[in-house]
Amino acid sequence: MKIYRANIIFTPSAERFEVLERGYVAVTDDGLVEGTYQQLPPHLQSAPITDYGDMLLIPGFADLHVHAPQYRNMGLAMDLELLPWLNTYTFPEEQKFADCAYAEKIYRRFVHELWMQGTMRSAIFATIHQEATLLLGRLLQEAGLGAYVGLVGMNRNCPDGLRNSSEEVVAGTERLMQELAASGREGYAPVQAILTPRFVPSCTEEMLDTYGRLAQQYHLPVQSHLSENVREIAWVKSLEPDAETYGHAYYRYGLFGQTPTLMAHCCYTDGAELELMKKQQVMVVHCPTSNCNLASGMAPVRTFLDNGVPVALGTDISGGNHLSVLRVIQYALQVSKLQYAATKGNKAFLTLSEAFYLATKSGGSFFGKVGSFEPGYAFDALVVDDSYLNFAGYSLLNRIERYVYLGDDRDIKHRFCNGKELAEPKM
Amino acid sequence: MKIYRANIIFTPSAERFEVLERGYVAVTDDGLVEGTYQQLPPHLQSAPITDYGDMLLIPGFADLHVHAPQYRNMGLAMDLELLPWLNTYTFPEEQKFADCAYAEKIYRRFVHELWMQGTMRSAIFATIHQEATLLLGRLLQEAGLGAYVGLVGMNRNCPDGLRNSSEEVVAGTERLMQELAASGREGYAPVQAILTPRFVPSCTEEMLDTYGRLAQQYHLPVQSHLSENVREIAWVKSLEPDAETYGHAYYRYGLFGQTPTLMAHCCYTDGAELELMKKQQVMVVHCPTSNCNLASGMAPVRTFLDNGVPVALGTDISGGNHLSVLRVIQYALQVSKLQYAATKGNKAFLTLSEAFYLATKSGGSFFGKVGSFEPGYAFDALVVDDSYLNFAGYSLLNRIERYVYLGDDRDIKHRFCNGKELAEPKM
Repeated sequence: MKIYRANIIFTPSAERFEVLERGYVAVTDDGLVEGTYQQLPPHLQSAPITDYGDMLLIPGFADLHVHAPQYRNMGLAMDLELLPWLNTYTFPEEQKFADCAYAEKIYRRFVHELWMQGTMRSAIFATIHQEATLLLGRLLQEAGLGAYVGLVGMNRNCPDGLRNSSEEVVAGTERLMQELAASGREGYAPVQAILTPRFVPSCTEEMLDTYGRLAQQYHLPVQSHLSENVREIAWVKSLEPDAETYGHAYYRYGLFGQTPTLMAHCCYTDGAELELMKKQQVMVVHCPTSNCNLASGMAPVRTFLDNGVPVALGTDISGGNHLSVLRVIQYALQVSKLQYAATKGNKAFLTLSEAFYLATKSGGSFFGKVGSFEPGYAFDALVVDDSYLNFAGYSLLNRIERYVYLGDDRDIKHRFCNGKELAEPKM
Repeated sequence: MKIYRANIIFTPSAERFEVLERGYVAVTDDGLVEGTYQQLPPHLQSAPITDYGDMLLIPGFADLHVHAPQYRNMGLAMDLELLPWLNTYTFPEEQKFADCAYAEKIYRRFVHELWMQGTMRSAIFATIHQEATLLLGRLLQEAGLGAYVGLVGMNRNCPDGLRNSSEEVVAGTERLMQELAASGREGYAPVQAILTPRFVPSCTEEMLDTYGRLAQQYHLPVQSHLSENVREIAWVKSLEPDAETYGHAYYRYGLFGQTPTLMAHCCYTDGAELELMKKQQVMVVHCPTSNCNLASGMAPVRTFLDNGVPVALGTDISGGNHLSVLRVIQYALQVSKLQYAATKGNKAFLTLSEAFYLATKSGGSFFGKVGSFEPGYAFDALVVDDSYLNFAGYSLLNRIERYVYLGDDRDIKHRFCNGKELAEPKM
């Protein structure tokens, strides 16, 4: 058992922050939270204590939608909407990942920055390239970061150099599962495969069917894109005219909640698609930065929450322009306020604790008991030195708010994932 | 004459960046740009050169709407709309500035952070307090930062402790003009008084009339708030029923372009108000961060630009949650894309060069020839080390884009205002 002492702040539920001023969190040798305490109880009196003084101790962040191979393009090329943006900027960059040396250069930086930004868990799109995708998985394992990594499948409406077959998806996914299992480090958070059909326009019926069978056979989770952009939705309708909604197009192949499923964006989800997500408990990954940058629109997050549809946050680089989940929390709040203004106050905006919850416990739930400091949760934690922001009698609730709105990577002094403190990964 | 060498990037017009790879800028002993050169011309061959290698050299930023006394509340308390937010959080904080020791503590940090963020020029709301406002002006002068500083006037709909009279506005403004002129440092950018009626709901007819006379008498510029929030606009209509629009309520007192005028927000400006702004060349200060945080709405910036209404950017702390003009550029772009989506593409979103121009040359124009590197412009400049972002063959246009979307204060290595390099101010 280890004990950490600091100002502990987390969100067991979305409604409010749990705050322990100069509290204690006890962590088992397996890396799980044993409990949080305002006073140290008798059974823990002899355990060693690491005291972080007046710093904040918060859960690590979860980024549930992120394209690792687009790291080079982060902060670039946002003068187009989704579909021309893919063809003009994104697909050409992803083709470079046939070259493992290039992939290693970019993926090492990507993994380093996940660590830097405090993103302890992520669900990642790689590319169609097996070697590069395996490399990404191994780099995450080396760093100690928990993740789902997806070999992307796409066999239509894409450049020839960025096309694979269903057979390659099967072989590549099986290889990814086996090799990641073999290279996993004991005691560290798992890095596992996730099924990653790019989106309906990129995958033929035959490929989607293959994905559905893989999901069932190995009970693998699924990630893809949904209802991001008006033109994309119209295109899917023309490609899959029999599907009632875009979401139903995934559902009919067994890729919409039959196993745990992440669907990024969902800017225009409503009606039957919303109902299906609710029934299937498909998790929305809200990517407000990306939805702004690509002029996609504003996802109806309040409606999802009101309907009991689970919601997480995603940076979605390089549609998103940065890899900071902290900043995505800000955007989630701010976009919800623009929706509040646009609906003349009918849609309540997100509260700070709600947005923080989405980035920690809600997103973390995709990885098991992750994102909170309740007993039994994996100890994923960030130690934050906000002293430069704390100059005028701020409460701890003030301090977490100012950290969310003003903090950045340089404030994070220690990072824990699954109970292990993570050293800075090599670039 | 001094010569600086670096990758020079600026926006002489909104349409595009001017880029000089490893170019030269010559600066006169008066702190003005003599010219920019790709090759050093004969008449400058003997001038000393400071070479910044592969760094970027860009104009300093201009923040045209910022409330210095709200610095403590930055990143806090954004769970209310404008009017209750003012009463609950903002007015109580501003009352503390009757205490000069408190004011000095906060204003020193504020000035330090302006410097840190590369904001070389700003138009600042202080409070009703003469001593504290003078102190703020002197701290700006010490730091070498150019600014307009406004003693705020408010005599209705405000707490008793935050109310002054028209006589106090006259005496305080005259004192501010005189004392700032006396303490100004030769060769540095000026710090000057600006008339600052808080907004129509805070000022009686008599006070607005006093402001109008002051504007005319001393030809002083004016700053205030306009059409920020739906409820505020309705309130102004009830207070000034004879004014055709909120803007006309200022106009009738001589406070709407009769002298150079800044109006912050303008989220709901259209029709006759827009026409009047165009005719009077009133400058809109676009504060997209604040407009998100306080759920105010999205200002029609494209409409302003199409109509030839000048536009600048403002951080508007603490409605805005940070003091970074760089981040306001991001928000200006992103909000314009949400407007593009909401209008189904009818309103073109801002381009990167347009948004950069608003933050530099357009905002700078309120201070004279400021915000560009054209001959005769004050040399306000930032030397930016973006080497950590420049790892994969980026063009200079890529690099400025990535700096805008991913950079922050730690990248700024040197800061110049009016030709003087500014040392870090004491906190």
